Amino acid sequence: MTQRIGALALAAGKGTRMRSDAPKVLKTLLGKPMLWYVTKALATLYAADVWTVIGHRAESVAAAFPELAGRFVTQTEQLGTGHALVTALPALTQAGLSHVLVVNGDAPLVTAESIEAFCAAALAADADVSFVSIELPDPGAYGRVVRCDGRVAIVEAKDFDPARHGTPSGEINAGVYLLRLEAVAPLLGRLSNANNSGEYYITDLVSLGEAAGLRVLAVNRGNDAAYLGINSPRELVAAEEILRRRIVDLHIEAGVVVRMADSVRLGPQVRLAPGVEVCGPLELYGRTTVAAGASLASHCVATDAVIGENVVVQSFCHLDNVRVDADCQVGPYARLRPGAILETGARVGNFVEMKKSVLGPGAKAGHLTYLGDAEIGAGVNIGAGTITCNYDGVHKHKTVVGREAFIGSNTALVAPVTIGAGALVGAGSVITSDVPDGMLALGRGRQVVKPRK
Amino acid sequence: MTQRIGALALAAGKGTRMRSDAPKVLKTLLGKPMLWYVTKALATLYAADVWTVIGHRAESVAAAFPELAGRFVTQTEQLGTGHALVTALPALTQAGLSHVLVVNGDAPLVTAESIEAFCAAALAADADVSFVSIELPDPGAYGRVVRCDGRVAIVEAKDFDPARHGTPSGEINAGVYLLRLEAVAPLLGRLSNANNSGEYYITDLVSLGEAAGLRVLAVNRGNDAAYLGINSPRELVAAEEILRRRIVDLHIEAGVVVRMADSVRLGPQVRLAPGVEVCGPLELYGRTTVAAGASLASHCVATDAVIGENVVVQSFCHLDNVRVDADCQVGPYARLRPGAILETGARVGNFVEMKKSVLGPGAKAGHLTYLGDAEIGAGVNIGAGTITCNYDGVHKHKTVVGREAFIGSNTALVAPVTIGAGALVGAGSVITSDVPDGMLALGRGRQVVKPRK
Amino acid sequence: MTQRIGALALAAGKGTRMRSDAPKVLKTLLGKPMLWYVTKALATLYAADVWTVIGHRAESVAAAFPELAGRFVTQTEQLGTGHALVTALPALTQAGLSHVLVVNGDAPLVTAESIEAFCAAALAADADVSFVSIELPDPGAYGRVVRCDGRVAIVEAKDFDPARHGTPSGEINAGVYLLRLEAVAPLLGRLSNANNSGEYYITDLVSLGEAAGLRVLAVNRGNDAAYLGINSPRELVAAEEILRRRIVDLHIEAGVVVRMADSVRLGPQVRLAPGVEVCGPLELYGRTTVAAGASLASHCVATDAVIGENVVVQSFCHLDNVRVDADCQVGPYARLRPGAILETGARVGNFVEMKKSVLGPGAKAGHLTYLGDAEIGAGVNIGAGTITCNYDGVHKHKTVVGREAFIGSNTALVAPVTIGAGALVGAGSVITSDVPDGMLALGRGRQVVKPRK
Repeated sequence: MTQRIGALALAAGKGTRMRSDAPKVLKTLLGKPMLWYVTKALATLYAADVWTVIGHRAESVAAAFPELAGRFVTQTEQLGTGHALVTALPALTQAGLSHVLVVNGDAPLVTAESIEAFCAAALAADADVSFVSIELPDPGAYGRVVRCDGRVAIVEAKDFDPARHGTPSGEINAGVYLLRLEAVAPLLGRLSNANNSGEYYITDLVSLGEAAGLRVLAVNRGNDAAYLGINSPRELVAAEEILRRRIVDLHIEAGVVVRMADSVRLGPQVRLAPGVEVCGPLELYGRTTVAAGASLASHCVATDAVIGENVVVQSFCHLDNVRVDADCQVGPYARLRPGAILETGARVGNFVEMKKSVLGPGAKAGHLTYLGDAEIGAGVNIGAGTITCNYDGVHKHKTVVGREAFIGSNTALVAPVTIGAGALVGAGSVITSDVPDGMLALGRGRQVVKPRK
Repeated sequence: MTQRIGALALAAGKGTRMRSDAPKVLKTLLGKPMLWYVTKALATLYAADVWTVIGHRAESVAAAFPELAGRFVTQTEQLGTGHALVTALPALTQAGLSHVLVVNGDAPLVTAESIEAFCAAALAADADVSFVSIELPDPGAYGRVVRCDGRVAIVEAKDFDPARHGTPSGEINAGVYLLRLEAVAPLLGRLSNANNSGEYYITDLVSLGEAAGLRVLAVNRGNDAAYLGINSPRELVAAEEILRRRIVDLHIEAGVVVRMADSVRLGPQVRLAPGVEVCGPLELYGRTTVAAGASLASHCVATDAVIGENVVVQSFCHLDNVRVDADCQVGPYARLRPGAILETGARVGNFVEMKKSVLGPGAKAGHLTYLGDAEIGAGVNIGAGTITCNYDGVHKHKTVVGREAFIGSNTALVAPVTIGAGALVGAGSVITSDVPDGMLALGRGRQVVKPRK
Repeated sequence: MTQRIGALALAAGKGTRMRSDAPKVLKTLLGKPMLWYVTKALATLYAADVWTVIGHRAESVAAAFPELAGRFVTQTEQLGTGHALVTALPALTQAGLSHVLVVNGDAPLVTAESIEAFCAAALAADADVSFVSIELPDPGAYGRVVRCDGRVAIVEAKDFDPARHGTPSGEINAGVYLLRLEAVAPLLGRLSNANNSGEYYITDLVSLGEAAGLRVLAVNRGNDAAYLGINSPRELVAAEEILRRRIVDLHIEAGVVVRMADSVRLGPQVRLAPGVEVCGPLELYGRTTVAAGASLASHCVATDAVIGENVVVQSFCHLDNVRVDADCQVGPYARLRPGAILETGARVGNFVEMKKSVLGPGAKAGHLTYLGDAEIGAGVNIGAGTITCNYDGVHKHKTVVGREAFIGSNTALVAPVTIGAGALVGAGSVITSDVPDGMLALGRGRQVVKPRK
């Protein structure tokens, strides 16, 4: 049988210690669920041969990972990691795998490089059952690795008894296994739940394997942080900080000017061109990309923002799912909501909100403005305090402003409405009907002056 | 005489090195005056048996601590700590205290646990005069503990003379004493101000006690940070940082997800439910409470905010003395001022200010809006750019909007005014008269279009 | 010839590794170009006897430093540091200098104190050619100092050959030279570009000097951070952090209460009075000054702001080139743009923008307001949502509001327009004509109420 390795991520648990209703593996680090990091690392090694066991709130986990659809294994009752493996076995066997790499879904620091090194060591030793061990100053609740007479065993922390197992060393089971399926399949029926938790432990394959004369191997990865699991809010924020530094450091090394780097949060899919300048505190998440020559000042938060060359984003901006083309100027205090598009050289200033709206090349909306469902043409000037009244309580309607039009300050554009190219709307107007190209529209009360009472 | 311990906090000094007109003990750490921390720790041990000596700007100190009213001792002239004790003695005696614990009001890191341990040691030794000593790498301006032939002495730093007192050790007087009143009362008359400062030092009770054959004890608390005093801005910010980490760490340990913990400031009375998520930079002060399932994004500042279950607060919000009920959504860029109340499921969006106003269940005010002295009913939609004109230059007036009403964008509601339930106000209107239930109101100029000049 | 030292800053290079089109020496640290720090340190020592060699994008460098005009030397082709010196020699000689101190323009951590100490050592030794050496744990790309038989040599990192030069020590050439012009002038013609880079190295004066029997001296400054050069974004942000801490620490030492000091950025020219309170994250740049008793809350960004006594700036404010007089209150979320002036006791609140406008003593603009090109008198109240319509698409016009006038909420003031003293403008008005003193003006549509469709 040819060698073919696949992976199994264990993501069925509840994670009681996280103190949250949400499944633990959906808890985020830098904006991505922890399971995302695990399956992403696995996919770089094993492409589609990655299965994920889900159980607790299985639907919400599945819904969060459409890219894993068809490779989920549902563990209806959460009877332990060994039971999860048994549940997944048919799928793994049917896929023609010779080996399965088993990892916990709550270990988001895992890297493809570290897994690859582990697997290489295991395969080189022609092991049937192998697992990663790491050394921790404080082994805490992790399963202890006990070595004796050239054999190796794992003892769960809650079952650990110094009288039986000797002084605990700092070497613990990292919860990552490489199993030769043909060798371990016969052992799965012998897994027992006669322990403190009443669960079937995958770890017991180690002792069962030893007893059955299989080749069992513990690959000691020293203090490799890749295998740190997350069981509590404290561990979550600690792991996020490790990840954060790792990502920020890669960007600095690649030539990004990351000022105040300790307060900069960059998601794992963020792409910044060399020479880009950002200053913390600042957060970029999702598929945010920033092109060469652009800069983002402090106190900006962006998700899925595509930022073009030489764009200047000032402080206090909030961008979500937007496109900002080259040479635009944004902020401070601009809020660009999903569907906002700024075309080349457009400018959006303070206390301006845009949603599903296009600001054409060179157009400006500088102050205290709301643009919703609007198409603003090239070179248009939107005065301070302009509001597109796009919602009538039932439907959203569109506002179209033609190129080079001028919208006076404090104007309400009651959609659906079209302002023609080159038209001028007087300040303080309420515009309810279309304005033809090049015309002047006013819609305001007549000023009267009388003695003050 | 039965043993009854009370406490005396010394808070009469000016704190010249703080470079501020305000009394030093009113300088804040995480939003609370430093004296608050001291008296709070004392109150947990001694309930109402806590007296505070005030002097410099006594009225402002007293005004800041209404909970201490009736237990202030005013030291009209600030002639030193010994003089402060003399001034307080009648009150302490009259209260029937056997012992008094004397602490400085500028030591906000003090904990009840540490004081309790000190007192236990002192009482166990049946000491008449005992004090806390700590060890500092750099003893600076603190009084040095000099031990010789089984006796102990304290020498003020400015009076310290190596020729007389020997090489200074790192052991210093922490400024915290436990005194048996019956034993020390006779010594108080012998305190002298014949020293470099011309002040009466409470520390001299140590030498006077030794001379009089009293039991004098220095309880060495090692490097316990609890006794660090604050004499300069540098010491203030250093102590605040210690306190900040201490508090943040307790929350993380209790299961709160505190991301970017180094930039999170939580006041000592803040309560966060386990599982709550917050992300720094962020500041929560006063009696802010956050219920389970809620989250606050980065760049939020809140004081005395009561935040309900599953509330989502986005970035850049500023909340002060408000109530946000379950399932509300707030921000980004929402400013909720005192008296703002968001009822279940209400939503407040960007560049919206609320003051003394209620937003009913499910109501929305999404954009560029000012709501002052307003009662907004359930399910109301407040359009972008809506302004309640609540102030006529003399009085504030009320705006009432009935349930399910729809306020078009860029509308001015000139208070006092009532919009009926289910009413609709056209965009861009100025509403000066009440609108009955279910009616449509418009108040805007007629649109005219003419050739542009 | 009398001793007269001048300085030459080398700022002609491109700085390819910075990954930016801008000249490297214009890259900023805390808001000032790195060359600014270098020339500033030199000017304190040598006043106007400071020359700067520019080359790559010479015009933009020159434009950024008007204070150096007349002392630039243009190196048309960038043929190396030796060539830069040759190019500058006529100017230096003509100025009557006996010695020239040569420094790199990319070493912004340099201090006058450190240079002075170096020069003192060099002059004391009566050296002809002297240079600073420092010791680095990782010498990287810097020229190595090779000492042999009492002689000293510098070998560029890329030319370093262990076979010829022996094991590299951590002692490197810091790129700072003191040269006696009379002694080195005859050597300049012998500089060669026969090396890996094809450039003329100023460092070769060391070997040429040794060969010619001059007094050559390496002054070892140990691990003095003053000479760290900046060649990459990583080095830029690392140097900025050193500088940031240095400046923040000086302010704390001087009695400023800098809370969350790790997240506070203060430019080198910022002046804060003792006792002032600021809280990070916060950024103050340029010639910002803050007078006694004032405070700035977290999340503020200010450049060239003059802030008076007892001013309170709340969170999320953005100030640029403004004056805020004593007792004013600003923010949160105030944006004050160039030319904004707040006179004594004025108040600007949330989501308010001011540009080229004066707010008179005690005047208020509290909410959602844009004031551009406006003069607002003493005691005026500007209602929420007020917009000065200052731009007609071609020109900017002025708005004048007389003292004690009251501008109702959601009002548009269409400039040019004057509101008289004590006048009252009704809420929701569009004001297009002047309003005389003490009169009431209204400009709004008539309210109509009809059945809702």
